[in-house]
Amino acid sequence: MRLTTYTDYTLRTLMYLAVDTGRPATIAEIARTYRISETHLMKIVHQLGVAGDIETIRGRNGGIRLGKPAAAINLGAVVRRTEPDLELVACFGDTETCTIGGACVLRTALHEALAAFLAVLDRYTLADLVAPRQQLGALLGLVPHPAAMRGIA
Amino acid sequence: MRLTTYTDYTLRTLMYLAVDTGRPATIAEIARTYRISETHLMKIVHQLGVAGDIETIRGRNGGIRLGKPAAAINLGAVVRRTEPDLELVACFGDTETCTIGGACVLRTALHEALAAFLAVLDRYTLADLVAPRQQLGALLGLVPHPAAMRGIA
Repeated sequence: MRLTTYTDYTLRTLMYLAVDTGRPATIAEIARTYRISETHLMKIVHQLGVAGDIETIRGRNGGIRLGKPAAAINLGAVVRRTEPDLELVACFGDTETCTIGGACVLRTALHEALAAFLAVLDRYTLADLVAPRQQLGALLGLVPHPAAMRGIA
Repeated sequence: MRLTTYTDYTLRTLMYLAVDTGRPATIAEIARTYRISETHLMKIVHQLGVAGDIETIRGRNGGIRLGKPAAAINLGAVVRRTEPDLELVACFGDTETCTIGGACVLRTALHEALAAFLAVLDRYTLADLVAPRQQLGALLGLVPHPAAMRGIA
């Protein structure tokens, strides 16, 4: 059981931006910092833009930054959006018709377990994830903006 | 986020056996019923035997059956054993050293979510999964043994 790297990188990108240095970040610097592919990151950034979680600043000193306060970006919502496949087993989908579909308590148990999983994530926002802001900034090689972090204060 | 087909088939096999017809089942009939590969199933059956959840009956009318009462086979325990990779993200493992490892609240959140997921499964036993025994038997083309199901009564 694994989340996709797509989800993983989406969350890491949001955390990077939530440290908020006061200037837009670039895809190149995020890719370099996490040692991940720039091409992969571009798709992620595009989708984050579509969702409104980040916004693109045009121009010479342009780049990307959060599109809303970190406290307004919910972890459960992001994961529900980025995980293409929250079907733990084939029978969660519409396509498979399992022999025992009609009498399957296993499906009920797994649905309940998935709901519990997502309920925990629903309790976290991006602001919670970057609470150790100074420490995160240091690890990412970023200097957090002296003003209160976007959406925290 | 998906469980492996290995886990899926393991659970379906256990459910099949828990209907308990009073005679051992064969790998061939289970594979045919669920329309899954016999080769794949053989590996699963072997591992279920190693775990003691099923036992092999030798001889002309031999086959496999549950090795312990269905109520003693816990769903959470089976999934923990069959899922090779409960590392939701790469950094759950020992191999990856993520840039922000030291200050990562995301990891904490995901660990907590996984624990909630498994805690739900821990509340179920195989006996719960086959509670609609008559209905399951009909769907699987099995006639449940008239005596109370193994481990339920």
